[in-house]
Amino acid sequence: MNRAALDSIPLTPANLAPPAPDYPWPAPYRSAMFLSFDVDAESAWTSKDAGHAERLVTMSYGAYEARVGTPKLLELLDQLGLKGTFFITGWAVDAYPAMAEAILKAGHEIGHHGYHHLMPDPGAPFIEEEVERGFETLKRRLGVVPTGYRAPYGEFTEGLRRILVEHGIVYTSSFRDDVRPYRHVLADGTPGPIELPVTASYDDWMHGLSTRFSPRSIFPKEHVLSLWKDELDEVRDWGAMVTTVLHPQCSGRPMRLRLLREFLTYAQGCPDLWITTGAAITENFLAHERAA
Amino acid sequence: MNRAALDSIPLTPANLAPPAPDYPWPAPYRSAMFLSFDVDAESAWTSKDAGHAERLVTMSYGAYEARVGTPKLLELLDQLGLKGTFFITGWAVDAYPAMAEAILKAGHEIGHHGYHHLMPDPGAPFIEEEVERGFETLKRRLGVVPTGYRAPYGEFTEGLRRILVEHGIVYTSSFRDDVRPYRHVLADGTPGPIELPVTASYDDWMHGLSTRFSPRSIFPKEHVLSLWKDELDEVRDWGAMVTTVLHPQCSGRPMRLRLLREFLTYAQGCPDLWITTGAAITENFLAHERAA
Amino acid sequence: MNRAALDSIPLTPANLAPPAPDYPWPAPYRSAMFLSFDVDAESAWTSKDAGHAERLVTMSYGAYEARVGTPKLLELLDQLGLKGTFFITGWAVDAYPAMAEAILKAGHEIGHHGYHHLMPDPGAPFIEEEVERGFETLKRRLGVVPTGYRAPYGEFTEGLRRILVEHGIVYTSSFRDDVRPYRHVLADGTPGPIELPVTASYDDWMHGLSTRFSPRSIFPKEHVLSLWKDELDEVRDWGAMVTTVLHPQCSGRPMRLRLLREFLTYAQGCPDLWITTGAAITENFLAHERAA
Amino acid sequence: MNRAALDSIPLTPANLAPPAPDYPWPAPYRSAMFLSFDVDAESAWTSKDAGHAERLVTMSYGAYEARVGTPKLLELLDQLGLKGTFFITGWAVDAYPAMAEAILKAGHEIGHHGYHHLMPDPGAPFIEEEVERGFETLKRRLGVVPTGYRAPYGEFTEGLRRILVEHGIVYTSSFRDDVRPYRHVLADGTPGPIELPVTASYDDWMHGLSTRFSPRSIFPKEHVLSLWKDELDEVRDWGAMVTTVLHPQCSGRPMRLRLLREFLTYAQGCPDLWITTGAAITENFLAHERAA
Repeated sequence: MNRAALDSIPLTPANLAPPAPDYPWPAPYRSAMFLSFDVDAESAWTSKDAGHAERLVTMSYGAYEARVGTPKLLELLDQLGLKGTFFITGWAVDAYPAMAEAILKAGHEIGHHGYHHLMPDPGAPFIEEEVERGFETLKRRLGVVPTGYRAPYGEFTEGLRRILVEHGIVYTSSFRDDVRPYRHVLADGTPGPIELPVTASYDDWMHGLSTRFSPRSIFPKEHVLSLWKDELDEVRDWGAMVTTVLHPQCSGRPMRLRLLREFLTYAQGCPDLWITTGAAITENFLAHERAA
Repeated sequence: MNRAALDSIPLTPANLAPPAPDYPWPAPYRSAMFLSFDVDAESAWTSKDAGHAERLVTMSYGAYEARVGTPKLLELLDQLGLKGTFFITGWAVDAYPAMAEAILKAGHEIGHHGYHHLMPDPGAPFIEEEVERGFETLKRRLGVVPTGYRAPYGEFTEGLRRILVEHGIVYTSSFRDDVRPYRHVLADGTPGPIELPVTASYDDWMHGLSTRFSPRSIFPKEHVLSLWKDELDEVRDWGAMVTTVLHPQCSGRPMRLRLLREFLTYAQGCPDLWITTGAAITENFLAHERAA
Repeated sequence: MNRAALDSIPLTPANLAPPAPDYPWPAPYRSAMFLSFDVDAESAWTSKDAGHAERLVTMSYGAYEARVGTPKLLELLDQLGLKGTFFITGWAVDAYPAMAEAILKAGHEIGHHGYHHLMPDPGAPFIEEEVERGFETLKRRLGVVPTGYRAPYGEFTEGLRRILVEHGIVYTSSFRDDVRPYRHVLADGTPGPIELPVTASYDDWMHGLSTRFSPRSIFPKEHVLSLWKDELDEVRDWGAMVTTVLHPQCSGRPMRLRLLREFLTYAQGCPDLWITTGAAITENFLAHERAA
Repeated sequence: MNRAALDSIPLTPANLAPPAPDYPWPAPYRSAMFLSFDVDAESAWTSKDAGHAERLVTMSYGAYEARVGTPKLLELLDQLGLKGTFFITGWAVDAYPAMAEAILKAGHEIGHHGYHHLMPDPGAPFIEEEVERGFETLKRRLGVVPTGYRAPYGEFTEGLRRILVEHGIVYTSSFRDDVRPYRHVLADGTPGPIELPVTASYDDWMHGLSTRFSPRSIFPKEHVLSLWKDELDEVRDWGAMVTTVLHPQCSGRPMRLRLLREFLTYAQGCPDLWITTGAAITENFLAHERAA
């Protein structure tokens, strides 16, 4: 690191938001699970390398989502009587409109997840285009105007935060710095969206997907259930929330669905736990914010 | 990513095949296991770097296959009374003809797996040569004209798909987008081969091989059995299929063979599960396709 | 490697210190645990790449430390009645003075951990500046003159060792070559600081943090508890010590705190184990050194 | 890969040795464990990058071997009444003569492991110098003329194989292609050394060492014991052998020694298993070879 780079590091926190407010969850709940899914299909791969479009097996990881994974997940959620939020890339909606319509028809919330799943990295081009094209596609194909946004690859810039506010996004769900919802404060001090924070432990990609591009391990049910239950049980003790970040191309695989069924059944057995959508958690936040 | 790359991404699925048809498995079976092996020997390593040919220990990973792994696997399959499909590279047949003959003589199906195990990546040279040289070797050495093909490194291009059809390949087994057989549709809309899809969880290389070239972990029996049983049990509930992708240089190792024996014994205890070759599953598909 | 590089390797040990002295721990203890934490906040990330300062989600890993992780850890230590040592970067103190004050007020020891968490690699600039700026910040913000130092990224150079001695550092805790405290010998044969050695197994980052920058796995409670208990129980048999290297952005996560609570409760159940700060272990060392 | 590289790949096995002969182990044994250790100390690290010599914490991983790991392992082997083979780099002997003398004095076999632990890769310089300097150091410091050799980084070239034969090496232990001893055949068809083959599963580095240079995971006792027992039990059924490749900087760590004690105790409980040195296994091979 040279002097200029070193001196460029601000001596203040990147996140200016005050502590997350400690309001109660809706009775009888004392903790929450934001049940959310990221539906990328092939855009999870072409966003790494456009050339992947010609690698047919790499593409097939994404296509699993439309052919098998999402239908199976919808079936599971229906059996359990659960509603969640599906953040879908515009590309996935354009390429697989029937899949997207099935999600909507089943009563789940549709969230914004970019168009081509491009990473919103500082200096990356197309950040605003990604946002606008995502809105346009959800509107055109599904008649949906999403209020929630999750960043592709879980990265964020100040510019993106501002663009989202300007486009009417009410909540985001990408930051890793809290266990309760809070309201973003933009760099200029004005209010940003509400954040429903996430954590790596509930991202199925961390434990369940290994490819020739990555040496990640695939872990069995016992491993993942232990992580997920420990995180959930501690969060319940804290009166806080967890956010799942599940991908149908991973959690829609047979052994992963089996694991998810067992986990969600466990979660449903916790009478203090509110399992719900991002929109519902956000509504609850806003009601308390207005009352404060 | 620049504009040209971004604009090169098609807005349609890479796989144009309709949903996998939902015909029944042969009575009394209600699910299937395509028991398959990939025999690469040293070509698994020289295909990454031709210079490996002079790295004698790196070569010895591959040679294990001929010296120990394949004979031990054949012995196990014989003890269990199981027949599977062995996708063998032409190189392995030329270098180890006795190993290849032993597989054939034991009654297993021989499949095509390229000649030098070169990855069929877009723009890679030798894709057609690999296919032709593989056919030529299997014919010359074994008198075999294979009807099944698995792609080295599990990658595929449209060009490869077309070449295989032209050379009479009836089924392929490399795509990750389904849990039942389906027929490929080529880019021009004409019929392609039947696909017997695979998944990373049944690839022994993901859990059992660590080298100085890769930080992958070696997982014990409990880990792998849990994955494999969960995947199998869920697939049985779905009426679908699993495909094993086992390499004698991995699953022929003592502790891995012990694990495989336990897994296959478990699978044989499932009265609803058809454990068979790719050719048999393909025959069954064709019969239903003709009847449809 | 070329001839010049090869010939540059000294034929003598890098560490000239004699064997660790084998004095007794304070009665009734027969082994020790140096309970220590590294508080880096965002400097854990900006020290890898100053550009991370604009990657808001990457920053949020660090901010978790101030918003949730450190408060929760302080609460746990208070509940258990334990005191430890917190090595804090100057950056974290400047950005989050209230967090640093809370640690101090709770009665824990404050140690030096650099300013920007820059790695003290041979030839790296700013090594001395990092040390001086760290001292200055701890003095200015907290009125603390630390006697203990842990190297960012766990690396060390001879120059750093000398600078620390000149600045009055009494003990360091970064080396991996022993299981008991020993006194460093500088390259010129003069005495260096006392070393309280560490080991990778008690670094929570090794088992609990996975990001898009690293393929590390996240392991469940059973995995980590097994490692930590085995290491502790064997060390107790040896009459030696362990050093925890825990980061609030990892161990302050819900499932990790749950694990840590269980582990510390186990450790507190060992009547022969002295759980304490680096300062206390160092005082004990000095008393025995003076008496020798 | 270009045409020239492709055409450079030989169409014959790299290993020309016939199948391993199937002679019996000495009564009452029916399988064998070659109990071996690799002692590299700091040369494990400087051989990757000579600049590591100035990275004092990186060096301290190696120094652990001399300060704690090797003494503790010798104590364990003494308690269990076991003799093994220690492959030591010349560098480790020059830097830590007392450690090397302690190994010799305890009655263990000393093997050749290069001087600077440089990888014998095709085209690497210093391959012959490494061999000669290793011999010279073992002779000068310990009065030992080793008959066994293990390659640093487990790699080998034809040139190295020939050099070793010319220098009187009787057995090597680096190849991964068998589960019983066999005699190498050099490229010109003349006899090479006897090989006592190894496997990655018994290399403690694969499961027990994680550093900032590598994302490898550290696995607990249950994981490693399961692997090691499964491999051992299957090999016992086969009448074959296993070879441990243990490093005091890994297996000499408290939790790893605890694991090794448990594993070796298990192995000693197998009445059919011969736990011994490379020299003893080689003698047995030679006796059968002469009798054949």
